[in-house]
Amino acid sequence: MARLVMKFGGTSVATVERIKNAARHVKREVEAGNEVAVVVSAMSGKTNELVAWCKEAAPLYDQAEYDTVVASGEQVTSGLMAIVLREMGIPARSWQGWQIPIYGSDAHGSARIVDVDGAGIIAGFDRNREVAVCSGFQGVHAESRRIVTLGRGGSDTSAVALAAGLKADRCDIYTDVDGVYTTDPRIVPKAKRMDKVSFEEMLEMASLGSKVLQVRSVEIAMTQRVPTYVRSSFDDPENPNPGTLICDEDDIVEQQIVTGIAFSRDEAQITLRRVADKPGVAAAIFGPLADANINVDMIIQVVSDDQATTDITFTVPTADYERARTLLESKHDTISYQEIQGATDVVKISAIGVGMRSHAGVAARAFRALAEKGINIRAITTSEIKFSVLIDAAYTELAVRTLHSLYGLDAG
Amino acid sequence: MARLVMKFGGTSVATVERIKNAARHVKREVEAGNEVAVVVSAMSGKTNELVAWCKEAAPLYDQAEYDTVVASGEQVTSGLMAIVLREMGIPARSWQGWQIPIYGSDAHGSARIVDVDGAGIIAGFDRNREVAVCSGFQGVHAESRRIVTLGRGGSDTSAVALAAGLKADRCDIYTDVDGVYTTDPRIVPKAKRMDKVSFEEMLEMASLGSKVLQVRSVEIAMTQRVPTYVRSSFDDPENPNPGTLICDEDDIVEQQIVTGIAFSRDEAQITLRRVADKPGVAAAIFGPLADANINVDMIIQVVSDDQATTDITFTVPTADYERARTLLESKHDTISYQEIQGATDVVKISAIGVGMRSHAGVAARAFRALAEKGINIRAITTSEIKFSVLIDAAYTELAVRTLHSLYGLDAG
Repeated sequence: MARLVMKFGGTSVATVERIKNAARHVKREVEAGNEVAVVVSAMSGKTNELVAWCKEAAPLYDQAEYDTVVASGEQVTSGLMAIVLREMGIPARSWQGWQIPIYGSDAHGSARIVDVDGAGIIAGFDRNREVAVCSGFQGVHAESRRIVTLGRGGSDTSAVALAAGLKADRCDIYTDVDGVYTTDPRIVPKAKRMDKVSFEEMLEMASLGSKVLQVRSVEIAMTQRVPTYVRSSFDDPENPNPGTLICDEDDIVEQQIVTGIAFSRDEAQITLRRVADKPGVAAAIFGPLADANINVDMIIQVVSDDQATTDITFTVPTADYERARTLLESKHDTISYQEIQGATDVVKISAIGVGMRSHAGVAARAFRALAEKGINIRAITTSEIKFSVLIDAAYTELAVRTLHSLYGLDAG
Repeated sequence: MARLVMKFGGTSVATVERIKNAARHVKREVEAGNEVAVVVSAMSGKTNELVAWCKEAAPLYDQAEYDTVVASGEQVTSGLMAIVLREMGIPARSWQGWQIPIYGSDAHGSARIVDVDGAGIIAGFDRNREVAVCSGFQGVHAESRRIVTLGRGGSDTSAVALAAGLKADRCDIYTDVDGVYTTDPRIVPKAKRMDKVSFEEMLEMASLGSKVLQVRSVEIAMTQRVPTYVRSSFDDPENPNPGTLICDEDDIVEQQIVTGIAFSRDEAQITLRRVADKPGVAAAIFGPLADANINVDMIIQVVSDDQATTDITFTVPTADYERARTLLESKHDTISYQEIQGATDVVKISAIGVGMRSHAGVAARAFRALAEKGINIRAITTSEIKFSVLIDAAYTELAVRTLHSLYGLDAG
């Protein structure tokens, strides 16, 4: 007997028919003798409808009310899933975030999970192995008793946090793909599904553009050590594939140097030319950006050819590009620079692998391979288990395929 | 300054545009210096969509889960209304049933309101005259902490119960008609809108088929003495009509003998012929029907022409007709009767007026007038302030118009 959390995303519960199919996966696990908590997203399309209404109500809508409106989507799915399970003869009940409760911070629209109280759900397990069908994406703020949501994609985070709170043996994330691939199979048909990937690598992949799991869900899985599977809800419920296991590095026998290639088109580049190179200049640039809640990613500073000034290049999310430029233009008095340049038609390509820790020259091989294809590198950042390059967006597919082959990830 | 509850039904909040219009009514009352709690229904059509999903999930769906699913409809409206009000510069926040809390019985799908705790809402009034936007139709069960709903049309009940809980000066029910009429204007074009109607009369009208208010909302208004207006949300928010006031009989100066004519098509007639007339026969018939949760309304018993047996006629809701017949057929051993007859093409016409208490022969005039039109009366019941006749459905309009004229209710 195991205790597990099974999470079904929006496409897996898009219709009542699909909810019934998802329920057959739950049934399989219950009949195998397991204690099961299910986490559901809103039916596909519903969240967008609710968000559109909020925007129609007021372009600058109140975030707390937005949370109240959009959290209703998961509430509907949880009730329907419980109805379906009971119809199948499986004891089940729905749990909203405030009922469990899952306590969140008061950052409406992007709350962090503060605590999960699993006592009520566990009491149901003990009573009659009752399946707990929990609304994902939502929690309640302890003091105000108001509904908070975790931000888009937050149901993955709900699932992993609930698994940690329930001390579950594992968390199964059911989605519309059958696992984690070495890269996006739509770009590289030779991409392979991985059997296992380490928490650290998955965290980098999620951070660097792979959309299969939400970053914070991987963070929690890693810090709380929750073995997490990514698998398909469209498999035959009687005979499903295992998917990809995200687990401790030590549980992976055959380590590759590079495990996967990720890419993100959500990058924009800003370069400040001939910045007066004096102490505190970095703070003068990046302080205001941080205050404006703009995430700065890659940062490169090189001394200009005149030796007295410096060029500073960095990237921001595409959505913040205009705001960042305007902000820096308004700071021309405090940051003395000659020119501000920018580009939005750029892409960040990353290679991830824990093997990089012990192998030198991994990135250098990539730079060479990309140069041979005539791909110009605009910026580079590296960390212990990954490196990223910023290139022109037009070369995305070529660069991803080049690196995928270079590190021996191609199937067959 | 007054404290009031304003309730908007499904058609009044069917779209974001209509929510904005309803909000303009709220704005008028807030700017007049009033403390306002708003009660909203689900956007028109949404509840039906949610109910359809429950039925698709399982024909015999779990009622507690049904409540969780359908209560989400009001949650959406309350959030959107709060967004709109805040956009207008009016302090406002949404309140779900469990947040207020409105405590309900555990009769999922048709819970009774047990208690309303208005402290949180009143604290908002005191702080900054914050408008409380409350989800109608829902409450929470105190022990299980699960969502309960009050049954269809329950938002009227929520509004009146909240008005009582907040000790409001009045409750305004905004709907798609501009008040309570002497009868259905679609059937009698000469029907008049009443300025005032007593709680007792409104209760009878609601019970007897008038759809303008839910019966239980009138019961609560009456027992808690909440002056309640029925008025139109489609009036000009700057210059609305007052609608119809439902109030104490004593507050109505000009009393009419008959105030209104109601009718209900939701009736079916069952007649048991030649029932052995012995003690306990009524209990043998109506006991099992009560056990099966079938509401029996009009009951008439007459001795048969053979003097040894009796004929018993009664009505049940159309939806329960087949079930009631089958049940009685199965009891043929204990209830000895010769034949069971039934009819579903019948209608109950009722005349209501507190003046009947002090005027004799009010009903007799009706029987004569209907007979003169060749309308056969199948059954009659009377009470202190109303009488009802069961007739063939084909004569509905003729009978309603005849009585409406007879009692001097025609306009002009």
